[in-house]
Amino acid sequence: MSDATVPLARYLFERLVQLGVDSVFGLPGDFSLALLDELETFDELAWVGAASELGAAYAADGYARARGLGVLATTFGVGELGASGAVAGSMAEDVGVLHIVSSPTTAAMSAGALVHHTLADGDHSRFLRVAAEITHSQHVVGPRSAALDIDRALSQWTASRLPTYLLVPQDLSLAPVSRASLERPIAVIGQKSDKRESARALIADYFDRFPSAIAVMGHLIARWARTDLAAILIERGTRMATLPNSKGVVDESVNGYLGVYNGKLSNSAIRDAVEGQDGRVLIGCTLADTTTGGLSHAFAPGSTLVVSRDGLRWGGQTLEGVRFVELLDLLSDQWPKRQECLITIPATPPLASIRPHVRDAALTQDQLWASIASSLPRHTRLFADTGTSHYGALDIAFPDDTAFEPAPIWSAIGYSLPAALGAAIGDRSRRVVAVIGDGATQLVAQEFGLIHRERLNPVVILVNNDGYTVERVIRGPRAGYNSIATWDWPRVPRALGVPESSLTIDTVRDSRSLAEVLTKAFDDPTRAYFIEVMTDALDAPPTLARMAEMLRAKAMKAEVKA
Amino acid sequence: MSDATVPLARYLFERLVQLGVDSVFGLPGDFSLALLDELETFDELAWVGAASELGAAYAADGYARARGLGVLATTFGVGELGASGAVAGSMAEDVGVLHIVSSPTTAAMSAGALVHHTLADGDHSRFLRVAAEITHSQHVVGPRSAALDIDRALSQWTASRLPTYLLVPQDLSLAPVSRASLERPIAVIGQKSDKRESARALIADYFDRFPSAIAVMGHLIARWARTDLAAILIERGTRMATLPNSKGVVDESVNGYLGVYNGKLSNSAIRDAVEGQDGRVLIGCTLADTTTGGLSHAFAPGSTLVVSRDGLRWGGQTLEGVRFVELLDLLSDQWPKRQECLITIPATPPLASIRPHVRDAALTQDQLWASIASSLPRHTRLFADTGTSHYGALDIAFPDDTAFEPAPIWSAIGYSLPAALGAAIGDRSRRVVAVIGDGATQLVAQEFGLIHRERLNPVVILVNNDGYTVERVIRGPRAGYNSIATWDWPRVPRALGVPESSLTIDTVRDSRSLAEVLTKAFDDPTRAYFIEVMTDALDAPPTLARMAEMLRAKAMKAEVKA
Repeated sequence: MSDATVPLARYLFERLVQLGVDSVFGLPGDFSLALLDELETFDELAWVGAASELGAAYAADGYARARGLGVLATTFGVGELGASGAVAGSMAEDVGVLHIVSSPTTAAMSAGALVHHTLADGDHSRFLRVAAEITHSQHVVGPRSAALDIDRALSQWTASRLPTYLLVPQDLSLAPVSRASLERPIAVIGQKSDKRESARALIADYFDRFPSAIAVMGHLIARWARTDLAAILIERGTRMATLPNSKGVVDESVNGYLGVYNGKLSNSAIRDAVEGQDGRVLIGCTLADTTTGGLSHAFAPGSTLVVSRDGLRWGGQTLEGVRFVELLDLLSDQWPKRQECLITIPATPPLASIRPHVRDAALTQDQLWASIASSLPRHTRLFADTGTSHYGALDIAFPDDTAFEPAPIWSAIGYSLPAALGAAIGDRSRRVVAVIGDGATQLVAQEFGLIHRERLNPVVILVNNDGYTVERVIRGPRAGYNSIATWDWPRVPRALGVPESSLTIDTVRDSRSLAEVLTKAFDDPTRAYFIEVMTDALDAPPTLARMAEMLRAKAMKAEVKA
Repeated sequence: MSDATVPLARYLFERLVQLGVDSVFGLPGDFSLALLDELETFDELAWVGAASELGAAYAADGYARARGLGVLATTFGVGELGASGAVAGSMAEDVGVLHIVSSPTTAAMSAGALVHHTLADGDHSRFLRVAAEITHSQHVVGPRSAALDIDRALSQWTASRLPTYLLVPQDLSLAPVSRASLERPIAVIGQKSDKRESARALIADYFDRFPSAIAVMGHLIARWARTDLAAILIERGTRMATLPNSKGVVDESVNGYLGVYNGKLSNSAIRDAVEGQDGRVLIGCTLADTTTGGLSHAFAPGSTLVVSRDGLRWGGQTLEGVRFVELLDLLSDQWPKRQECLITIPATPPLASIRPHVRDAALTQDQLWASIASSLPRHTRLFADTGTSHYGALDIAFPDDTAFEPAPIWSAIGYSLPAALGAAIGDRSRRVVAVIGDGATQLVAQEFGLIHRERLNPVVILVNNDGYTVERVIRGPRAGYNSIATWDWPRVPRALGVPESSLTIDTVRDSRSLAEVLTKAFDDPTRAYFIEVMTDALDAPPTLARMAEMLRAKAMKAEVKA
């Protein structure tokens, strides 16, 4: 290796560091060992070895939420497919994960050699085609264009902040690449757009018509770390709402924040304000069933300005080719100042138990979330898993500067534990709290070990309701398929690699103990806490109960029956 | 629902029972609840709820190995992708798993509705296209052709015994389907082949030229439960070998069994016999790198008759369209009787330690496998996980009637534990033994709970070598990326849902204790055993060491370097 070149893997890693990445999540495989050897000698980038590819990919997603970008590295076939459920989730939720996959050699691939980690049919492009279904762009490092291929991949990755697939053949991992390219920053795609002025004009027109438009602050604002926009707009007297998957993008104590808009599941004051005559600007929102009360939103196109990741839409007009961050600047430039006095709407519906709890001395979800609401410190990153936890979190008011990290579109149970651990690695200044059910935790429990290996201090609140309560609330409340193996939860972290020196374990069954344990955990950031909260199998937060009712009614209506 | 119809889900389940299936593995999701409700009321088919989709899919694979066919049911997107790594493995290893996926409603799919468990881009065919990359055939149940769609899927599934994908939209789960079709058996595709006579002639020609051909007995013989063929051929004085992934297809004590052919990694006597002048018939073999000593096999096409899943190949002649089981019948009809006295070649290379072991009181892999060899009861189903365990198993002689279930083509670590549990459910008459590393077990540990829930009696031998030794042997012997979180293994099964009443736990560090514990476990089929065997991080069975050397040399040779 001459002075003018660096090994390909080193080139890639130097680039990642330039982009602000300091950790790579994954598992090794024989095709990736040369690449990982190079990582081993490179101090600026840490390897975070997870126990499963699914967990590694979720952790990379959490890291990307904390830092804008996250990196996952797996082997071909077996490794990448193991991660695929999580990578698709990053795509659904707009999270910028780069997936580096180490493949068989260029020669083996072009010859169609029957090597392991393939279907032994000579087709080495199968997993690339799978990646094309679940990632934003796909790139294969070639023998004569390695630096260019890598830069192109990284450029698309950073421009989109979406899942990006990079295939590195085993034999090229250490191939010499010109060191000089590293001196030039990666070209950012579409940074200057000639459509910017058209966008400015369209926005100006919109605000001429709708000077008092409400802002619906979407999750993309958090992905691009532009929550400062909320403060700017509030300053101008703008009223604003979030969706279920962007709650937390706006500090909830500010005057002008209305709460979570969730279609027909919203309280009527929020619904009237968002759907009303003044117009609304949807800023980086995805209108999926789980973010709009089952697609029950009602936005008249003529009064709705949609700001998406690459353009604008208003009434019949569509403008594409302007990047989201540029659009945010145009919006903040032009958003009109509003004169009237603002009326604050209570941000959260009153907490009320909607199902009787029958297990002796079990807590209700309402008690749990009321307790979290009253003790959660500011500057927390909160993960509430799909299912009861997500809906519980929607029902409380957050303290200032809460980063909430839901994933209701993909709705994969189990996401929150490894994602929280990845986020804690990505941003050690912000403590992570993960609230997650027992059935969900069983999907990813092997990742507990990261708490000790990476010296993390999460507060993990395990909601033990003896199975898949989110499904029970929809259908099959007593069905066997909603039950799970009974784990001895207080023993789990110890068995899976987290000693007493790293983590405190408690089980709580009543609200007084819960409050005490939460206070203890939140007051002590020097270690991790695992809190098992015993709740009833049929107890659910009110918003979930209403959502479930809606889903059930829809399903029943759609069902073809004699 | 009139008397003339049954709900679609019930129709599907009745069909599965007709095909000999008695269990369905999986996890519920909101799209699948109606389907599972129907299963709940159907006594002939049991729901086996696993803790993760990956584990459920591996268990279905193990069940299919024991019974010919296995069934997995997951939800759309999140569930199916979680299983995809395992389903692709079933494809690579030719295992007949039916994957039932419950999707959003027909209306939501045709409208491109932005529902959860999708990428929220309106494209509901993404996961179907993923399935097309990793399964043999894909089928979507339509509103007007439900029974036909199901029958077509099941027909292709049973004809191929390969992974088959069946999408059932949520709204159709309970749609009325004519009960009458259930009276007719499912049409089997290609049962009668007009090419049969051509195949017979080709085989006759081949045996005219090579009357003393050796039989290389492949894994497809096991998949089609036709191990009786070995006895028939042995009776005629045929000599035979297996490949690494079909070891166990032939009873190893019989005269005429030569041992495992593994290309240049075979001992020279086996290699000479298989590659020699007499010719060879490859019966249902896949010649991948991990089944041929790194593609180092040498079979002259002119003297090699290849019997594949759908045809024959000899020299320049190819004949397609005859099913494997028919070809087996033709072979057994025509295989010539051989007169000479047979010479038996020792089936296994001598056991020898190839690396010094340094951990105090650690066992060697050789001691472990010698101990298993001397105590393994006949009529066992043995899973030895990819990595050190697989190669250890190749180095010993099996007792009669050992069903060996390796998966070296897909080579996904972690497969063996859930697959063994699934196999135990599929065939309770044959005890399962799973030998698996600690790193591998971490990928799938959540499935321990099945042992207690399903009242299984496996012997699980955990090889604790503190990380990914199979990778260490290839590269990075001391690298951080080959280390894993340190689990407290004797606590793991208890924490994860297996009480003392179901399972005995031991840790062994010397060969005397190992022998005692193995004897105790094998002598007592009334309960499960978990045996943690402490071995050194760098200790590996001899065949793995040779394979690793070959892989390393190849990788080094291929590496592009300055």
